[in-house]
Formats: sequence, C-alpha cells, structure tokens
Amino acid sequence: MNDLVIRNARVATAADVFQADIGVHDGRIVALAQGLPAGAREIDARSRWVLPGGVDAHCHLAQKTGDGSVMADDFLSGTRSAACGGTTTVIPFAAQLKGESLAQAVRDYHAVADGRACIDYAFHMIVSDATPRVTDEELPALIAQGYTSFKIYMTYDDLKLDDRQILDVLYAARRHGAMTMIHAESSDCIAWLADRMLAEGLDTPPYHALSRPPVAEREATHRAISLAELLDTPILIVHVSGPDAIEQIRWAQTRGLRIYAETCPQYLFLTAADLEGDMLHGARCICSPPPRDEAAQQAVWNGLANGTFQVFSSDHAPFRFDGAGGKKPRGDATPFNHVPNGIPGLETRLPLLFSEGVLQGRMDVNDFVALTSTQPAKLYGLYPRKGTIAIGADADMVIWDTGIERVIRNVDLHHNVDYTPYEGRTVNAWPAVTLSRGQVVYADGVFQGQAGHGRFLRCERPAPARPRRAERRHAPWLAALSRMAPWEEAAADGDHA
Amino acid sequence: MNDLVIRNARVATAADVFQADIGVHDGRIVALAQGLPAGAREIDARSRWVLPGGVDAHCHLAQKTGDGSVMADDFLSGTRSAACGGTTTVIPFAAQLKGESLAQAVRDYHAVADGRACIDYAFHMIVSDATPRVTDEELPALIAQGYTSFKIYMTYDDLKLDDRQILDVLYAARRHGAMTMIHAESSDCIAWLADRMLAEGLDTPPYHALSRPPVAEREATHRAISLAELLDTPILIVHVSGPDAIEQIRWAQTRGLRIYAETCPQYLFLTAADLEGDMLHGARCICSPPPRDEAAQQAVWNGLANGTFQVFSSDHAPFRFDGAGGKKPRGDATPFNHVPNGIPGLETRLPLLFSEGVLQGRMDVNDFVALTSTQPAKLYGLYPRKGTIAIGADADMVIWDTGIERVIRNVDLHHNVDYTPYEGRTVNAWPAVTLSRGQVVYADGVFQGQAGHGRFLRCERPAPARPRRAERRHAPWLAALSRMAPWEEAAADGDHA
Amino acid sequence: MNDLVIRNARVATAADVFQADIGVHDGRIVALAQGLPAGAREIDARSRWVLPGGVDAHCHLAQKTGDGSVMADDFLSGTRSAACGGTTTVIPFAAQLKGESLAQAVRDYHAVADGRACIDYAFHMIVSDATPRVTDEELPALIAQGYTSFKIYMTYDDLKLDDRQILDVLYAARRHGAMTMIHAESSDCIAWLADRMLAEGLDTPPYHALSRPPVAEREATHRAISLAELLDTPILIVHVSGPDAIEQIRWAQTRGLRIYAETCPQYLFLTAADLEGDMLHGARCICSPPPRDEAAQQAVWNGLANGTFQVFSSDHAPFRFDGAGGKKPRGDATPFNHVPNGIPGLETRLPLLFSEGVLQGRMDVNDFVALTSTQPAKLYGLYPRKGTIAIGADADMVIWDTGIERVIRNVDLHHNVDYTPYEGRTVNAWPAVTLSRGQVVYADGVFQGQAGHGRFLRCERPAPARPRRAERRHAPWLAALSRMAPWEEAAADGDHA
Amino acid sequence: MNDLVIRNARVATAADVFQADIGVHDGRIVALAQGLPAGAREIDARSRWVLPGGVDAHCHLAQKTGDGSVMADDFLSGTRSAACGGTTTVIPFAAQLKGESLAQAVRDYHAVADGRACIDYAFHMIVSDATPRVTDEELPALIAQGYTSFKIYMTYDDLKLDDRQILDVLYAARRHGAMTMIHAESSDCIAWLADRMLAEGLDTPPYHALSRPPVAEREATHRAISLAELLDTPILIVHVSGPDAIEQIRWAQTRGLRIYAETCPQYLFLTAADLEGDMLHGARCICSPPPRDEAAQQAVWNGLANGTFQVFSSDHAPFRFDGAGGKKPRGDATPFNHVPNGIPGLETRLPLLFSEGVLQGRMDVNDFVALTSTQPAKLYGLYPRKGTIAIGADADMVIWDTGIERVIRNVDLHHNVDYTPYEGRTVNAWPAVTLSRGQVVYADGVFQGQAGHGRFLRCERPAPARPRRAERRHAPWLAALSRMAPWEEAAADGDHA
Repeated sequence: MNDLVIRNARVATAADVFQADIGVHDGRIVALAQGLPAGAREIDARSRWVLPGGVDAHCHLAQKTGDGSVMADDFLSGTRSAACGGTTTVIPFAAQLKGESLAQAVRDYHAVADGRACIDYAFHMIVSDATPRVTDEELPALIAQGYTSFKIYMTYDDLKLDDRQILDVLYAARRHGAMTMIHAESSDCIAWLADRMLAEGLDTPPYHALSRPPVAEREATHRAISLAELLDTPILIVHVSGPDAIEQIRWAQTRGLRIYAETCPQYLFLTAADLEGDMLHGARCICSPPPRDEAAQQAVWNGLANGTFQVFSSDHAPFRFDGAGGKKPRGDATPFNHVPNGIPGLETRLPLLFSEGVLQGRMDVNDFVALTSTQPAKLYGLYPRKGTIAIGADADMVIWDTGIERVIRNVDLHHNVDYTPYEGRTVNAWPAVTLSRGQVVYADGVFQGQAGHGRFLRCERPAPARPRRAERRHAPWLAALSRMAPWEEAAADGDHA
Repeated sequence: MNDLVIRNARVATAADVFQADIGVHDGRIVALAQGLPAGAREIDARSRWVLPGGVDAHCHLAQKTGDGSVMADDFLSGTRSAACGGTTTVIPFAAQLKGESLAQAVRDYHAVADGRACIDYAFHMIVSDATPRVTDEELPALIAQGYTSFKIYMTYDDLKLDDRQILDVLYAARRHGAMTMIHAESSDCIAWLADRMLAEGLDTPPYHALSRPPVAEREATHRAISLAELLDTPILIVHVSGPDAIEQIRWAQTRGLRIYAETCPQYLFLTAADLEGDMLHGARCICSPPPRDEAAQQAVWNGLANGTFQVFSSDHAPFRFDGAGGKKPRGDATPFNHVPNGIPGLETRLPLLFSEGVLQGRMDVNDFVALTSTQPAKLYGLYPRKGTIAIGADADMVIWDTGIERVIRNVDLHHNVDYTPYEGRTVNAWPAVTLSRGQVVYADGVFQGQAGHGRFLRCERPAPARPRRAERRHAPWLAALSRMAPWEEAAADGDHA
Repeated sequence: MNDLVIRNARVATAADVFQADIGVHDGRIVALAQGLPAGAREIDARSRWVLPGGVDAHCHLAQKTGDGSVMADDFLSGTRSAACGGTTTVIPFAAQLKGESLAQAVRDYHAVADGRACIDYAFHMIVSDATPRVTDEELPALIAQGYTSFKIYMTYDDLKLDDRQILDVLYAARRHGAMTMIHAESSDCIAWLADRMLAEGLDTPPYHALSRPPVAEREATHRAISLAELLDTPILIVHVSGPDAIEQIRWAQTRGLRIYAETCPQYLFLTAADLEGDMLHGARCICSPPPRDEAAQQAVWNGLANGTFQVFSSDHAPFRFDGAGGKKPRGDATPFNHVPNGIPGLETRLPLLFSEGVLQGRMDVNDFVALTSTQPAKLYGLYPRKGTIAIGADADMVIWDTGIERVIRNVDLHHNVDYTPYEGRTVNAWPAVTLSRGQVVYADGVFQGQAGHGRFLRCERPAPARPRRAERRHAPWLAALSRMAPWEEAAADGDHA
Repeated sequence: MNDLVIRNARVATAADVFQADIGVHDGRIVALAQGLPAGAREIDARSRWVLPGGVDAHCHLAQKTGDGSVMADDFLSGTRSAACGGTTTVIPFAAQLKGESLAQAVRDYHAVADGRACIDYAFHMIVSDATPRVTDEELPALIAQGYTSFKIYMTYDDLKLDDRQILDVLYAARRHGAMTMIHAESSDCIAWLADRMLAEGLDTPPYHALSRPPVAEREATHRAISLAELLDTPILIVHVSGPDAIEQIRWAQTRGLRIYAETCPQYLFLTAADLEGDMLHGARCICSPPPRDEAAQQAVWNGLANGTFQVFSSDHAPFRFDGAGGKKPRGDATPFNHVPNGIPGLETRLPLLFSEGVLQGRMDVNDFVALTSTQPAKLYGLYPRKGTIAIGADADMVIWDTGIERVIRNVDLHHNVDYTPYEGRTVNAWPAVTLSRGQVVYADGVFQGQAGHGRFLRCERPAPARPRRAERRHAPWLAALSRMAPWEEAAADGDHA
C-alpha cells in the first residue's frame, strides 16, 4: 500500500500535462495512474494543478557577510518560508571568505544547516579566493563529493575574482564537470561612478541604481561569455536585470555557446523608481543589479517567453531593518554604499510568477515548471531526484490554488525579514499544499513542517540545457593544448571523479 | 488487468527521464509505476529507451501533383514505412488545387486514406486558392471540424499565394486559432534565375540548387515573418535549409515573435554536392529548398541545439525513378525544372537523428523527443493524445535499439520508392519495437501492422511553443481595428468554433 | 580676368574646410587661392560659409498623377523655390505611366521643362511598366543618353512593379551601369490594412499612418535588399522613415552590400501626431512612408550621424489645398486614401538641416555638404560637375547666413503650394546668396534668377559611395550565368554604352 | 611668384577629384587653378594622381622597450623610409614607463627626435602609469601643449592599465578633449593560454597566434567600447585584426557610439600561416594581435569598404634579426614569448593599399586618401594643416606612379630593419615624387630629404569622424554627476585649455 495517494491531480511537468492519481512510497513517487488503489493517506487534489515543488537555486541563508554579521534567515526560517511559498528545495551558498579554505567553508556551513532545514537543500559554493590550492585541489575534491556548482563574482571587493582567476575556476569546472554561476557586473565601472557620486554627496538609494548602470552589467556579461567561450565551458549568468545583458546572452546562445541565464522577481515586478522616496523605502529595494525600468521588465518577460532564460530564482538575501547586520547600519540616512544589497523573496517567488506569467498568458504551465523547478534541478545536478513529477523522483509536490485574490502582506510571510518589497500586491495563485518527500509541510495556510526534516543533497554533474554544444570540433587554441577535452567528453571519460 | 505491460522501460519524454513499467489499457497509457501487476501481454524493454512514437508532421502521401499523377507512397506504404522507422503519427496534406473547394479536397483525401493507414494520421490542408469563400467560410468550418493547420506556398506556380492572400489566410488562422505552415522561397527570384539558366542550357541537377540560392529563401522567410508580425499571429516556417533563413527566424524569436521553424534530415545529411554526378544520381536529391553545404549543416545543427527549431520532420515526398509521375519524366536527361522536387525519408528520419544527434552528443534524448514528437504534436493540436508517454496518452511508443551498426539499404526500407538518398550510410540506432495504440506494428525487423488500424485524428487548436507572446499590448494598427483580439484572447473567448 | 571672385570664403566640401578666394569663369570654378586678382564682379563672403549648392535628388515637379492632374509646382516655381533655399540642382522624375513608352515620357517631360527652370536639372525616370521592351531596349538607350537613374515603386497600384519586374529593372541597371531608387513599402500589407480601416469608417488622416506601419516598410526594404543582393547590384532606398527599415539597411551595409539610403526632413521634424487634428491640418502632412514618432526621429538622426544614410532630399511633392489635383478632392472630409501623398519642402530642406544638424552639433559641415550635395551628385552621375567646390566644377555655390533667427512662414516661400508643414518653426541658418553657374539667383532675400537659365544635365554613370564592393568573387548563382560581370567590371569594360 | 607649381595634377582629396595646377608658397598650398603663372620651380604631374601625403598615425620610432633596448628605426631612418613610401607625417609614441613622469617621457622623446626627422611629426603619448598625478595634472597640461592623443594598453604587463585606470584616462580625455587609442586584447586570457602552452613546450611562433585568439581581442574590444560608453567619450581601437572585433565595433557604431577603428597592412596581407616554417621565418611576422586567416582578411577589406574603419596605419615596429633588442634574443629557438611583437611597414603601407585597394576596385581613391591621410589628420588634431590638398594646407603631396609592376625587396627599402614581411610581393603603384612642405624628399627612386627638415607638430583638439554623437541627452548616470559635459560641449566651452 502506498503511503500516500494524491487523487485527481492535474499534473504538469516541464513538458507534459496529464490527469492522474499519484502514488507515493517512502518519500518517492512510485506510481502515476488512473485509479490507484487506496493509500495510507489520501489527498484529493480536485483537479487542481499539482506541480513539482519549486527549486530555488539562488538564495542566501545564514550567510556570513564581510562585516561579520549573518543574514537574517537561517535554515529554519528560510526553508519554512520557502515551503510556505511552494518551494521544496533550496540551494544556498557555502561562502568562502578571502584567505579561507573552501572545504572549511563547506564544513562550517554544514554545521549551520544541520538539523535546521524543513525541506531538502544542496549547497552551491562561493569561490572568493581562487588560489591554486582551491582550484586544483579543493574544487576537484568537493565536486567529487557532490558540490558541483559554484558562484563567482565580478564585483564586490571582498568577493570578486579577476579574469585570470575566473579562467582558473572555469578550467576546474570544465575538467571536473561543474557549473559556474557568475554575478556579472563590472566592479571598476561601478566603483568609478559610486566614488564620484559619494564624493558629491549623492548617497541616497536612487544613486545605488545610477552607480550600477546597465552598461556595467552588459560589459561584465560579455566578458564572462568570452571567458567561457575561450575555455568552451558552460556558465550561468545569475540575476539578469534587463535588455543590455540579455542582448549579450542571446547573442551567445545564437552562436551556439552554452550560456545559461537566470532572472528574478525583482526584475519583473520592481523598477528603479522603487528606490525613490524616503531612505527606508528606497533601501528596501536595494539589490544588485538594481531593478531597471518598465521597458526592462518587458525585455525580461520576453527573455522568459523565448527561452533565453533557463532559471527563475529568488536571490533571497534577507536583511532586516531593525537590528544589527541590517539595511541601515548608519541609521535612516545610511549612504547607499553601506546598505546591504539584497531583498527577500523565497516565499513570493512562485505565486508572483504563476499569477503574472501563467495566469496572464505570458508563459504556459510547462514553462513555469521548467523555469522554477526542472531546469534548475538539471543544471545543478539534482535531477531526476528533484525537479519533476515522475516515477522515482522525490515526492516534492505542490497543489496550487488558482483563481484566488490574495494580497501579499509581510505579516503573513514566514521569513525572518521585517518587510517584503511586494507589500500590498495582489496575486491570483498560492500553494494549497506543499509536500516534501511525501510529507505535508504546508497546508491550509499553515506551516506544518519541522526543523530537521530537510536533508542535504549531494549534487551530480550538471546536465546542460539548451543551447547545447552542437559543434564537434575544438577551438584551435584548445586543440593545441593537451588534456583539453570538452565537458561532454570529460563526462564520458569519467574524468571528474 | 492491463492489456499490455512494458517492463523495465527507460522512458524519456520531452523533459524527463525515468525508469518504470508502463501499463496500457484500451490503447492508452494508464499506469507508470515501479512494479506493475502482470498484463495480458508483456514486453521487457530491458532498460532500453522507450520513447513516444514519432510524429512526422510533414510528409506527402498519395498526393496529387499538378500534372495529374499521384506520389508513389499511399497511406499504406507510407504509414508502413513510417512505423518501421519509429513514427506512429503522420500528418500528410489534403491539397487544394487551384479552383477547387478546400472542403472537397479534404473529403477527397479522406477517401484516399480510409482503411489504408496502419498508424494514426491527421491532415494538414494545403491552401492554394485563397478566395474569400475559402478564407472566410471553408477554413473556419474546417478548423472547427479538426483541421487546424494548413500549409501555404510562396513558390511553385500552381500553389503559391501572393502576399495579400497570405494575409487573408493568416487572418483566418488568427481569428479561428489555426497554425499556418509556410514554404518560404521567393518564387520570382527563383523563376528569374531558372529561366536564364535554362535559356543557357544549364539544366542539370546542380542548377536546381543554383537557381534557388539562400538569398531567395531568406527573403521569403523575412517576408513571411513580417506578414505574421503585421497580424500578430504565429507561423511555422517549414524545411529551413541553412544559416540565412535561420538568422531571420532567430532574429524574430529574439524580438519575441511567435515564429516557429522546422528542419529535415536532408539539411543535416546532404549537401548540394549530392546533386552532382550523373542525372540519375543528382535528381535523387532534388528538393526545395536544396541542400546547401557543410557550413549550412553545422548551422542547422546549431539551430537544433539552441532551440531555434521546434520541429524535425521528414518532408517525405515520394517519387520513383521508374514509372509515371517519377523523377525522370523526360528520361535520363530530364532538365531540372521537370524533375519533381522531393525525396523520401519517413523511415530514416528518426534513426538518423538519434544516431547523429543523441548518440553524437549534439542533443539529449529529451530534445530528440521534443523535436520529433512532442512539439509537433502540440503545435498541430494532437497533444496530449499524441507526443508523449504520460497517463491518458495513446500508447504510441518505440523501444529503441542503440549501440548497433546498421547500414541503410533501400531494399530494407518499406516505402514504395526505389531509392533512398542515404543508401550506404551507417546508423547506430533503430527501433526494436513500434507500438501504435498498444499494438505492435513493427518488431524484430518485421512490419507487423495492418491497413486500417490507423485512425484519423481530429486536431485541437494548436498550442504554441516558445517563443510565446509576452507582450500584453496590441500593435497600434491592430488596436485601431475592431475585432482584432490576438490569438490567445480569441482562444479564451472560444471565438474559433 | 575672372568673371567673378568671391572673397574671403570659408569653404567647405564634403571633406575639407579652408579659407580662400574663389575665381569663377564661364560659369565654372577656375581658381581657389589666397589673394586672387580682381574679378569683373566681386562678392565678399566675409568669412561666412560658402558651400556647394544643394542637389535635391528627390523632388516632384509638374508631374502628372494617375488622375490626370499635375502637381502644383512646375519647373519655374519649383526651381525658384529651390534656389531661394540654397539648392542649385534638382532631379525630378520623368514618370512613365502604365502602358506608356518610357522614352516618350522622357520626351514629354523635356517639353514641360524646356525654358522654365532657373537652376540646372537632370531627370530620374520612374519605371512603372517594366516590359521587356522597356528593360531591354528603352532603358539601355536612355542610360546611354544620360538618364542613368530610375525610381521604382513597391507600392501604389498605378506604379508598383512585382518582384520579377524589379529584377528585370535591376538587371538592366547592373548591365548598363545605372542607379535604381526604390520606394520600399509593401503594397499588399498596406492595402490589407487600409481596406479594413476604410470599411470600418476609419478614414481620417491618422489612419493613413496606421495603415502603413513600420513593418510594411521594413518588409519591403528587406525584400529590395535581397533582390539587389541576388543580382549583386547597388540600389538606393528612398525616404527611409525610422528604425525598422534602418536596421535592415545597416545590416546589409554591415555585410558589405551596396545598399544606399536617403531620408528627408519630414522624418526628422514631423511625427504621426502631425496627422491629427482637423482633416485640413492632418492632410497637410500625409506622405508615404508616414512620419513616425520621436524615437524614430532619433534613429534617423543616428543614421545620419553614423553614415547609414548617404542622401538627404526633400521628396518635395507639391499639392495645394485649393483647386484641382489638391489635398482635398472630396472636401474637408476627404478620406485619407483620396488625399494625395506628399508634402512640399524644396526650399526648407537645407535651412532645417543646417540648423538642427550642423548648428546643434549632430553633424559637421562636411557631413552636411556630403548628404545634401556631393553624395547625391556622385550617386546620380552629376559629379564632379555638381556637388562640390573644386577646380572645374560648375560655380553652384551658396553663401550662408548663420546665427540668425528666422521663422518659417509660407508667405515667405517661393513655391506654388499654399502651406508648409514647418509653418512657425524657427531656423538659425538661411542662404544669403545662391549662385548658379556663377549667376546670382537669390540674394538679400529676393529671387534674382530667371526662367530658362537652368540647363538640362546629362548624367554619367553613378559612382557608388560607401559601402563599396570589397568581395572579389561572384555569387555562385551569378558565376553560373554568362555575361554576369558585376557593375564595376561592366564599367571597366565599357559595357554600358 | 609661387615657389613651386605642380602642373596638370589629377588631384584627389578625401571627397573630390579634379584636374588643376597647384601653387605652393612658403611650404603651403596657396593656389589651385587651371593655368597658374609659372613658379620658381615646376613639376609636371602629367595627369598622374597627386594625393595628400600619407599620415602614418601608428608607428614606433626609437622607442625604448621594457628591457632597455631601443627599436631599430630612429627618427632619421624611420622618416626616410616613410617619405620614400609616400608618407609625409608620422605620429610615433612618447612612451611613459611605469613609475615615470609622462611629461618627462615627452621631453625625453623630443630629445631623441630633435633634428633627426626628414618629414614632420607629432607625438602620441603612451600612458602606462595612470596615477592621479598623471591623469589630473600631467595629461591636462600636455593636452593643452599640443599632445592631444594617447594610447593605452589592455595587455602587456609593463604597459597595461586596469579598467578603473582606463576610466580615469578616458575621463581626462573627455574633460580636456583628447583622443584615446586602445590596444584591445585581454591580458588575462592571453597569459592564461600562453603560460599553459609554454609549460607544454609549445613555444614556436605559431603558438604566439594561438595564444592570442580572436575571442581575446573581441572581449577587450567590447570592454573598451563599454568603458567609453559609460563616459560617453570617443575612443579609437587600433590594429583590429578580424571579424570578431569588427563585429563589436560595428555594433557600437550602429548604436551611435563614437567608436573609431584602425587596421593595418598585416591584417590584409598576412595570415597566421606566415608564422609557420622555421623560427626565423615565423618570428618575422610575430605581432599583436596576430594575423588571422583569409576570411579575416576579407572581413577587414569589408570593414574598409563600408566605413567601419577610419584609419589605416602601419603599426611599424622595427626589430632586426641581427643585433641586440631584436627578434631573437635567445637565438634561433627563441620562444615566442621572448620575440618582440611587431613588424616593419612604414614604407610599404601606401603602395600595398593603393595596389590592392584602389587598383583592384575595393575602394576608390577618395577612400584611400581618407583612410591614409585625412581622417588620421582629423582624428589626431593635425587637420587642416595636414591631411589634404587645399588652400592653406602644408604642401605635403605625393605624385603617384600607377600601372607599374614593382617587386618589394627589402634591399630597396629605406628603413633600418633587415627584412620586410612582404618580400617578393608585387605592387602596381609607388610614389614618383614625395613633397614635404613643398620640398622634394623623394623622387626618381632616390631619397632626397634631409635630417632636420621635419618639424614637430602641436596637435589641436581631435575632430571626430563618423559616427558622430547625434543624441542630445546625457546618460542618466552622467547627468547625475556635475561637471560632466560631453565632449562637444566641453569643446564649445573652451574647457580644454
């Protein structure tokens, strides 16, 4: 007898839609059928959408920042909030500080996470100190242990790598089969502008956006593409904000390069105008890259609709207004360069996209599943365990209420942040039930999970999405070097373990 | 008890891969599970790939040509050949001749098809006489009856429409929710060149290719895109041959237009050099657009790998060398303009792409399924009945042998054509078993189907793929006109019946 | 002794700026020097700009229209107006009507022009009936006689050619060395929209613009480019209105095609909003393509600044409000499709561009000369006789007053049209003196020329501008045909006479 | 009486062609006329082309290199060679070494040049140490003194600036009206590849090219464009080698950015295959970026033909094979990273381009003049003194022999380098007479100049070419900062002195 049967599900995967009962056993989906025998527990989906639980592939939990503080959501509050918004897997970042061992950073992060999460989680790593020891020894070992993706920064003084270091990291990714996420903004451009603005006393939140213009994002995006092209290895550009960077990404994809891209709710639902008003109001929406304008929003929608983006994440970066480590370390007149960059969004990510994307006809439900669950699971080596409703997959599922009107209020959210940038916005969809490995973690508007239910996930080698590599020849500069097998061949050779 | 259980299937859909037993009842897939109860019949897939049967959305069967002859494959030989190559649905063309009623052409084509097919089939229509009666009365009625796609030509004197007629057809498609397929080559450019070549006595097969240069295809492609953009309605450009047309399609998709595209085996595996040699050899490979060169092949592979193409079809156009209506109406020295355009390929389409695409790493198995089955089923309104392995879908499935070496020989094929352009080429995959609605129609190298098993399929309204329409506003020239709801709105309004 | 010496001229050509005295003898420039001996007549330029007289390469004078009426400016009023605005050469159109002999149209037009013009003039031809007799016999003969450019239309029922006819015309241009000007708007797109708008009673001037959307211009532009590429021969796209068409032209130039482009004052200084208001007001600004919006104006400025455009013309098309053949054949409520397309602009073309282009820093004075005089003279075979201030050139020169404020008033203009669309606009430059072959035709605000001074100019073979043809190989489809020498080779071979 | 009259000159400027006598007085052109009075000296041009003397805006003379050696040509041998090849102005580089004062570098370079040159010369500066003192004090002072252009490097350890330093330099250029030349290759990409190649023992000349792939040039080109766009100030990308970088430049120009570009003979007449063969042979052609392939050559021709390039220079970098500081510091097996980068070309630049460009029909003579003389003179502030044949200009002119066959032999050249990469190539044009300020410096195959004739030229503010800045608004991030007038406004305000 199955532990659980979900009746009358209107299931959608990244490609399919079908009506079925879903049988769950030992936390896995074991049967999809018309008319399953009774299960130990039953839930009637009543022909509502049942979709794979969300995979939020870009969120920051309990992460140490440069100044020694820790972000406001830990693995409990963060995963609780995620679960209440329909997300069943999170991939936060084990962040290396400069001078630190990457392996140690991973160990430390496990200590922070252990026993706290109420949904499953994997780790990306942040590589901020790309020494030979890190790229040649630690990274290969960690990749083999199931940490197969890492993020690098082209901006932020305490995190950024120079181009040569990026190449070293990309080379490790190529040889050992990992996915490199890149925050692409030009550090030097931003610093040049910000320093001048601050010197002129232009330090309120709108100048945060003005000091990070689209051209600074575009330049770094082109550079990241070029470095990846040089080594013929895939990368994923995170949190793309508008048409300038999109143009570069699309150009690369058109040429057949494996350049993947992520965007986030803030680039669909906020604009730079949200940084205006009083400091408090503006600081809430300070993130990097900054939200742009309405034309940029349309360009991002367009990029979602034509396949330029593979991943839609929250980039949840929880900073409170009250207390230490928050949005106003220098009080109500904190200059923009002292405001932590980031906004919360774990819980609102999926309802916002379902409402404005699926229900408004800008994408279909398969696209929604692909962007929020299947493709991140594949690109980060969690598939087929996560990211789909299919035989053998973990029973991470969400039954959706649609056709509703729900006003987003921070008081109703479950994170540990004292605001949401979407306060007052109405959405027309919200999870009715969230299941993690067959366990109800959210239902009827109430969190029902528990700390420690969530397990750490070792990641497999990433599986590239479109565009794939259709060219069979190597670039001559790589062909000249020995041991320069492209990624797929490396994979075939089992070179990565 | 299920009629059939396929054990140990390594199933792939357009998005997923999973291991399961597959239960079939009354010709439909009713269960996917680990460890199904015994079925009336059992097939052990032994962990081989089990994929949705192919949907060949572009093939010509028993079609009358302008000179009164009929193409060499009828619904029996054509569907037999398809089944033996892993295809379980074909969509040939009910072709209107100039002056003829479209509805009558459909009725006539049913008479030709009835009781002959051994796999299921739907009809596209060919609209060659776009009178007001056809666009305003016949088309809406036929769309409502399940003929929801039609092909139009920008070349061939007996088929082509002028731009105004194309707009009339696109407008009917927009209002009633149908998909328009377009053969995009500039009639005037080709005629201008061909007439001069023929006047100079340059009449051998290579001049067929020279008289239809890439610029003639590109111009018509841009024009088709523009006409579709004017009316804000989707189209699908068929049999795209190389980088010039691809550039236009990609440009349109990048801008967010719903321009879909199809390519065919001849653009991956043949070049214009295959038109050289003696007349007989060259005439075998005469088709339009003509195969180009190796750089074009790479561009087509690239377009498959980055999502520019949604559909991979055969464009099977069966002409024999011997007999009437064939490739040499004027004998061995038949001038190219008298050689019928088209090559056979129903049976070899899937093995060629599986071998060179999936097994050579240019695409993954999900892409293969999407291009050859799921996306054509969706774009032409056959999904979810066809195009996937999911609960409720027809049990059209193929168990694949891979890792084999099989030399293509025309004597081994099941069509009624006396050659294949791929004679002697080795493939590394071939269907082991083909199932149509749960019935084995091909196994162990032997056709096991029967005429009349195949049923006619009424098509639903097409479901667009990526790119979708992300823009919510209407173009001002459409907004100015009343009753100009875009397609999705028309759909929502039920305006199409 | 020189007939005339202009002292202290600040001369600009398309490339140079220098200070000199200018000696004129027998109507030609014979000396440029510092400190010339006294001339029979002297004019002190007082260091003002002395520029080559304008060449207005696109204007309609005394042209018969389809309904039998004749445009409002004849060779006297038109050239008078031109001279008063700094233009010293006009190239109006000898227009063939359908069914008419082209040679006869030229003869007839000479009869209209003879003895009337007060500045020099050449003829373009309009080819509206591209029969074999016209393309194979009349055109070659006329080209040899000095009529080396012709305009063809892709829209207007009484003028348009189909694509095959366009190829025939381009082929004649290629073989005999002529320049083809193309009005690129899609006839079928426009007719489809306009018919529906009119059927709905949407017939006021703004619907003229809505019925001719940018996509209709873009499609025809791409098509014209493709036809020219097929035959590897240069064309010039006239009166380009905005970014959609510009994108295509730039794309072609980037690829090395010899695609030239012209724009006009109405695309810099008017928008579609100028068609609003009462019928009279709106009808004044009805022209084709219609003015677009401010973003399009900026795109046109940008195209002037980066070299996409080679020519800036008026497209002067004189229609009065009062009287027959005018703007309101059906009175104040004339539907837009009955309003003649075209606006006056011969006299205001140069002052507008000098003010907003040169004086506002969007171009330098060399660009101004190139766009308004040198490049049209070269592209239409009038150079070096016209288009520059150099030894041997005709003494067609303008001394400019700049730094002034002059309000454009139709009462001050010298054409025979009862309005100007620029009424009330202030310009900061206007000719002080206009010289035609050394004769003052305008000075001190007064027309001083006389009918009959202007002579007919036989045109030489056009001299292409950038982009030139850098590729030495022929396209394979052309290489296959005999006698398909590209233009330059044809020129070298003297094949054109 | 004029000092010199050149009779029967077929003069070409960047825009015009005319037949005239040319009167020279005190080293300047004072008269252009038909039938000048006799001069003190007369030269009969016999209707041969008389063109402005070449301006070689990119050449290295007597330049110190990082290892303390000095390049092989000094101001005497270098300008002698230039004069014999039709060049009458050179702009070599006063190169700042790291840690050095830029003003001192200029003073030192004057000491090297004084009394040695036989044609006129100006200085670019090389800024390799962009300290605040240099950018805020030295550069403004030097610009005011007539050093209005400087080159910066994105590669070479001893020269390269980081992006922030580049912004500081561009900001100085913007504020004070100077032109910034950029060597755009990614230092990190090249180092990453080269280090690996050398570690694998791949050290022969072909690996020089492989270690500097097109993507490394393209990335830096995009980055340079972006930095210039951020500050809205013009730059000139030097020695562009092929289609990847050209695509970026063209893209920027299309968008209206003032991005100028230079190419050199080595990118038209050499390929990477010229680096093959024995070390000596290969090392001759080592330069950076390296020559590419034939497709790249065609792309460069195309870029010259469609106006993407404004300047054609030699990048003469003279290194001998024998002696110190030469091409083989470590003998015949010198690894590529120890071979000085650069090839000679001052004397062959113009004959090569005239032969293959003008005489082969890829450009006309006006283009030739623009690319080799007028446009560099304008862009570097030497116009109208240099760069044209016009009243008031210096009498720097070349009478050309064309229609000849001359084999290039290093023994016939006048530089101090012991090879030419063009040995054995035939050209069809060569200067007959070169005049510098009216003095014959080369005639009848014999150098007739003298050291010390050449004078130092103070440069004016650069005059941008196309594309110009047509947009009147400031980018918002610049508008936010005070004192951020764009270049033209700065110019109008006289802000630069």
